[in-house]
Amino acid sequence: MPDMKAVKVVLDHAPQRVVIEGVRPEIDGGRYPAKATVGEKFRVEANIFADGHDVLSAVLLYRRAGEPLWSEIVMTPLVNDRWRAEFTPAQLGCYQYTIKAWVDDFATWRRDTAKKVEAGLDVSVELLAGVKLVEEASHRTGGSDADYIESLAKYLAGNFEAKDKLRVALGDELNRLMAKHPDMRSATTYPKQLSVNVDRKRAEYSAWYEMFPRSTSTSGRHGTFKDCEARLPYIAAMGFDVLYLPPVHPIGQTKRKGRNNATSATSSDPGSPWAIGSGEGGHKSIDPRLGTLEDFRHLVAKAKEHSIEVALDIALQCSPDHPYVKQHPEWFRWRPNGTVQFAENPPKKYEDIYPLNFETDDWQSLWDELKSIFMFWIEQGVSIFRVDNPHTKPFAFWEWLIREVKQVYPDTIFLAEAFTRPRIMYQLAKLGFTQSYTYFAWRNAKWELTEYFTELTKTDVADYFRPNLWPNTPDILTEYLQTGGRPAFMAKLVLAATLGASYGIYGPAFELQESQPREPRSEEYLNSEKYELRNWDIDRRDSLSHFIARVNRIRRENSALHNNRSLQFHPVDNENLICYSKNTDDFSDIVLVAVNVNPGYTQSGWVDLNLREFGLDSEQPYQLHDLLTDARYTWQGARNYVELDPHVSPAHIFRLQSIATNDVRTP
Amino acid sequence: MPDMKAVKVVLDHAPQRVVIEGVRPEIDGGRYPAKATVGEKFRVEANIFADGHDVLSAVLLYRRAGEPLWSEIVMTPLVNDRWRAEFTPAQLGCYQYTIKAWVDDFATWRRDTAKKVEAGLDVSVELLAGVKLVEEASHRTGGSDADYIESLAKYLAGNFEAKDKLRVALGDELNRLMAKHPDMRSATTYPKQLSVNVDRKRAEYSAWYEMFPRSTSTSGRHGTFKDCEARLPYIAAMGFDVLYLPPVHPIGQTKRKGRNNATSATSSDPGSPWAIGSGEGGHKSIDPRLGTLEDFRHLVAKAKEHSIEVALDIALQCSPDHPYVKQHPEWFRWRPNGTVQFAENPPKKYEDIYPLNFETDDWQSLWDELKSIFMFWIEQGVSIFRVDNPHTKPFAFWEWLIREVKQVYPDTIFLAEAFTRPRIMYQLAKLGFTQSYTYFAWRNAKWELTEYFTELTKTDVADYFRPNLWPNTPDILTEYLQTGGRPAFMAKLVLAATLGASYGIYGPAFELQESQPREPRSEEYLNSEKYELRNWDIDRRDSLSHFIARVNRIRRENSALHNNRSLQFHPVDNENLICYSKNTDDFSDIVLVAVNVNPGYTQSGWVDLNLREFGLDSEQPYQLHDLLTDARYTWQGARNYVELDPHVSPAHIFRLQSIATNDVRTP
Repeated sequence: MPDMKAVKVVLDHAPQRVVIEGVRPEIDGGRYPAKATVGEKFRVEANIFADGHDVLSAVLLYRRAGEPLWSEIVMTPLVNDRWRAEFTPAQLGCYQYTIKAWVDDFATWRRDTAKKVEAGLDVSVELLAGVKLVEEASHRTGGSDADYIESLAKYLAGNFEAKDKLRVALGDELNRLMAKHPDMRSATTYPKQLSVNVDRKRAEYSAWYEMFPRSTSTSGRHGTFKDCEARLPYIAAMGFDVLYLPPVHPIGQTKRKGRNNATSATSSDPGSPWAIGSGEGGHKSIDPRLGTLEDFRHLVAKAKEHSIEVALDIALQCSPDHPYVKQHPEWFRWRPNGTVQFAENPPKKYEDIYPLNFETDDWQSLWDELKSIFMFWIEQGVSIFRVDNPHTKPFAFWEWLIREVKQVYPDTIFLAEAFTRPRIMYQLAKLGFTQSYTYFAWRNAKWELTEYFTELTKTDVADYFRPNLWPNTPDILTEYLQTGGRPAFMAKLVLAATLGASYGIYGPAFELQESQPREPRSEEYLNSEKYELRNWDIDRRDSLSHFIARVNRIRRENSALHNNRSLQFHPVDNENLICYSKNTDDFSDIVLVAVNVNPGYTQSGWVDLNLREFGLDSEQPYQLHDLLTDARYTWQGARNYVELDPHVSPAHIFRLQSIATNDVRTP
Repeated sequence: MPDMKAVKVVLDHAPQRVVIEGVRPEIDGGRYPAKATVGEKFRVEANIFADGHDVLSAVLLYRRAGEPLWSEIVMTPLVNDRWRAEFTPAQLGCYQYTIKAWVDDFATWRRDTAKKVEAGLDVSVELLAGVKLVEEASHRTGGSDADYIESLAKYLAGNFEAKDKLRVALGDELNRLMAKHPDMRSATTYPKQLSVNVDRKRAEYSAWYEMFPRSTSTSGRHGTFKDCEARLPYIAAMGFDVLYLPPVHPIGQTKRKGRNNATSATSSDPGSPWAIGSGEGGHKSIDPRLGTLEDFRHLVAKAKEHSIEVALDIALQCSPDHPYVKQHPEWFRWRPNGTVQFAENPPKKYEDIYPLNFETDDWQSLWDELKSIFMFWIEQGVSIFRVDNPHTKPFAFWEWLIREVKQVYPDTIFLAEAFTRPRIMYQLAKLGFTQSYTYFAWRNAKWELTEYFTELTKTDVADYFRPNLWPNTPDILTEYLQTGGRPAFMAKLVLAATLGASYGIYGPAFELQESQPREPRSEEYLNSEKYELRNWDIDRRDSLSHFIARVNRIRRENSALHNNRSLQFHPVDNENLICYSKNTDDFSDIVLVAVNVNPGYTQSGWVDLNLREFGLDSEQPYQLHDLLTDARYTWQGARNYVELDPHVSPAHIFRLQSIATNDVRTP
C-alpha cells in the first residue's frame, strides 16, 4: 500500500529537521555573486528553525574559492528565527559561503533540566538521560577532548551527590565541550554554495574627477598628457583619488561632429572623443595630439605619486574610420543597401558612430579582441575602467569579460555608465560591474532622495550594486544646477560625497559652476567639451575647489563615510531639509549631515534623532562638530533645531560625539 | 590565449539576450508550490528585459502536471519591466508554469520604421530590411499562414508604390501574422518549471463552526451524533459550511484530567478529547458515548443535506491507554527509568499525553499508520481535517503525508492549528497545509490588524498561506472578549468574517458570549468543555446567532468577500476606527467595512477613499448600502464621515455602488 518511491524520498530528508531559508546575501537564487571588500566584515543572515521547541545551533561556513577546507563561524540568533554571522575576507577574488544548522540535543537537555531544577522537581531520570548524551559525545570525539568528556560522563554516572553531579552536568565547562563536539549526523546543510566577490577598498570608497585631457593646456592649444601632469597637484589638493579621462584614442573624420553637436565639422574641430578610431589607430592607440603611449604611462605613474589612479573610458563603438571597419567588416551590421549600420535612436541618427555587432557569427574573435583592449590598458598601468553604455551590449558579454579580466587582474574596477531603466542597471551590477552610475543627478527633493537611497542601501540591491554618485557629467547638466547657482552646486557636492561612499564630478565645469545649457530644456552643456577644446581658469576666485577639498578631507578623516550600509535618514519637519547619518560598525565615528535642498531660501526645522541607536543617553548633552565650518554645537534630547542659509552654507556635516558631563558644566 | 572553457559557457548563453527574473509566485526558489483554486484566475508576474532598446515579447506557459503539452498566454508589460499574465486552472491538482521571452525583431523594426515615417525620413532601405524579416517568417511557418506571409513578402519586394507597401508592412494584418510566428531561436526560457497546487473553492472561502458533540444534548446527559444532527438546522441557519468536531475517539483513563484541568479526575469526568485512545480503541475508533461509526457516517450525510461538511480534528498523540502503546512501544520515546516519555513544556508536565516519536527507527511503519488514519476518515466521508499542533511534528512528515493523501483525494483540505512563531506557521503552509490559523485573535488595535493583514495579503505570504481567522477557540478566550462585552464579540465577528475569506468560531461559547476565564490573566475558559460536558441554551435571547446569520449571508451574497488578495485598507483619522475594502477583479462587487475596535465608546472619524481605484468618479455621488442594517447612505468625494456606537452596532458592512445621476435628484 505505501508508495515506496515516495517513502524513499522521505528517507533522504526525514532526519533533517532544521530549515534554512531566506539567506542574504543570495542574489537571484545564488546565480550571481555578492560583493565585499578586503578586510571588511561580510555579513550573512538566514532564517533557521525546526519543528517543536528544541534548541538549535548554526554555523556559517566560508572559504576562498578553490580552497579545500571551510572555516566556521558560530551564528547568533537575532529575533524572529533570524540568525547572523560575519566573516572578514583577507584576499581579493571569490569566496564561497553556506550554512549548517542542527538540533542541539545537549543544549535542549540542559535548558529543560535547568528549568526543572529551578522548579524544584526531581531530575534523577533527566540526569541519566544527560549521561547518555555525554557518553555519545565521547564516542564521536577525537583527541584529548574525548578522554576528558569520557571522564565527565563517568563522574556523572558515578556514585556521587546529585547536587554535585548537577553542577557539573549543567556547568559551563561541559557545555563548552559539548558545543565543540556536536552531533551533526542530522544537520541540515544549505544546499547552495553562495559566492561573494571580494574587491579592494577603492571599489567601495572612491572620489572621482573627470577631466578632458585636451582642455588642460593653459595657452589655448590642444592639451596633452604633459598638461595633465601639471594639473595633478590641483586635483590632488582637492582630494580626489581617481582621475577619469574620456577616450584618449584617435578620433574619426567621417561625419565628425562640430561644435555644439553640429552635424558638420570645420577642419579645426577636434571631434568627439567617443567617435573612436581613425587612420592613426583604434582602441589601443593614443591620439597623437595628446602625446605618446610613453607619455600616457608617465602620466599614470605621476598620478600614482599623488595617490591618484587614472581611469580610462572604454566605449565599445567605432567611428567609420576605425581600422576594424576595413579589417573586420563582419563585426558590423550591414544595411540592405550595402552600407554599415550606424547608431540610431529613431528617428535620430548618429552617423559618426558604428555599433559593433556582438551577435555576429564571428562573435568569438570579436569578443576576444574586445577583451584584449582591456588587457592592453591594464598592462599600461590602468586598473579602473569607466565603461560607456554597457546596457547596449549583451549581458552575457559583460559577465564573460569581467570574469575573464578579474581572473588575471582581480583588482580591476569596472564602473558601469548605464543611465537606463532600473532593472537593467541592477542587472549589470549583478553581472560583475564593480560600481554603477545612478539617478542621483536627478534626485533633488528630499522625498525622492530618501526613497532612492533607501532602495540602494537597505534592500537586496545593496548586496551587489555599489552606487557612484555624480552631480554632473559631460552629458548631464541638470536643471537644478542650471538654475540653482552656487548653493545648488554646494548642496549636490555634499549630498554626493556623503550619501555615496563613491562619488565623482566632471570638472573643471563643476567647481567653476558651469551652468549654461546648449538650449532651453536641454541637459547638454553650451560649448560642450565633447565637441571642442575649452580653456578653463581653474584659479578663478569663485571656484569651489577649496570647498571640495574640505569635503574630501572630511571624507578621508571619517571612516563612517566609507560605507553605504549604515545610511539612516532622520525626520525633519521641513520638506526642504534632509538629514541623515552614517556610522562605523562600532559607532566610534558618527557623521550627521543636514542639507538644505532648496537653493533659493533659508530653511529651518527640527531634527528628530533616535539617540539610543547612536548609543547616546537621551538625558545627557552631546556635541555636534560641524566639520565644514569648525563650529561646535551642544545638543540635548532627540529634537533639535537646524537652520541653513544656502547663500552661506547649504549644509552641515557634523561629527557627533558624546561629551563627558564635566565638559558642559559652566565654569 | 582565450580560455576555451569559458568561451564555451558563453556560447551556450550568448544568444539569449532576454533576462527573466523576479518571478512571482515562486516560493523558496520553486521548492514549494503556490496555491490556487479551480476556476479562478492565477496570476503570474516577472521582470523581463534585455540589453538595448529592442521590443520584447513574452508568454506564460502552463500545463497540468503530467500533460505533455504547454498552453501559452501572451504576457503584458506593466511598468518598470514587470510583465503579467493569468491562467485559470480547470481541475484540481498540480499545475506547472514557466515563462518564455524573446527579442521581437519584427516588432522592433515596425516601431522604429513607423517613427522614421512619422519624422518624414526616407525608409526605402528599412523597407528592404522588413521584407527580409517577413521572408524569414514565411520559411519558418507551417500551414496556410506560410503561403499568406510569403505572398505579403513578395508584394513588399515587388514593384509597387512605396506608400502602399508601407501601409501593408506597418499594418495590423502583417503584425498579427508575424506575432503569431515569431523567431524564437534565441528565446530565453525561464530555467524553472514552477508549480501551483489547485484546490477547490472551499480551500479559500469557508465559514467554520466548532462544536463539542458531547455538549449537544438538551437534557444534560452525554451528547451523541444524533444530538449533533438535531443541531444541524441551527448551524445551517447561521450560515456555516464547515462543522468542525474536536476528536471523537475513545478517551484515556490514565492520568485523565478533571474539570478545569484538575490533575485528577473523578469517575464522572469525561476527560479531554485530545487524550486519545483507550481499551475501546484509538484514532480510527469512535467514543461509544457519541455513538457508532454508522452514526458518524449518518451525521456526515445529514450535514451534507444542509450544505455543511464535517471536519475532523486529527491530533497525532496518544493517551497512555492508547492501543499503540502496547502494540508499538517502539513508536514512543522511553525514559532511562523504563517509562514512556510524556508530553512536557518544562517545568510543566502533561502526563495524560504521550507524544509519538517520529524519528523512531521504525518511522516508516509509524508514518504509514498515521497516514492510514487520514485515509480511514476520508473513506467515512470526511474531506476536511483540522490538524492539532502540526508544528511539533517533523516538517518532512507533513510534506509527505499531505502529498500522499492529495494524490488520491485532491479535494482534501488540511487546516494547520499551529499557534507558534511566524516562520514555522508559514513553513507548514509551504509544505502543503491548505489553510492556517493566524494571530487574528490577538490583533485588536487598528495598527496591528493593518500591519498583520498587509503582510498576509500583500506579500509573498499570500502565494501559499491561506488564513483562517478565529476570534475564539476552546483554548483561546482573549482578554478583548473577556472584557469587551457584546460589542467586542460583534466587532471580532465582523473582522474575522470580512478580513478573512475563511473564518471560524467556537460555539455556542461564541454566540452566547461566554467570557469568564478560569482565572485572572488566563485565556482558558472557566468550566471549559475540554474537561467537562456543557449544556448550552442556544435559544437565549441575547445570542448573536441572528447577527452571525446576517454576516454569513452578506458573505455568501458578496463575492468580493470570497478572496483575500483584493484587501485594501483606507485611512481614517481615528485610531479606533478601521476601514477596509474587498472587491471582485472586475469591481462589479465592492464591499467596504468600517469597524469600531474600541468596544467601550462611540467613535467617529473621516474615511479617505481612493475613488479612482474603485472606478468611481470623484465628482459624482455614490451609494453605500449597509448590509447589516439595510440603511443606505449617499457619499460624495473621497472624504466622508463615519460614526459607530458599539452598543448599537460596532460595524458597517457597506456595499459600494455608483448611482445613476437621476437617482440622486431631489424629486
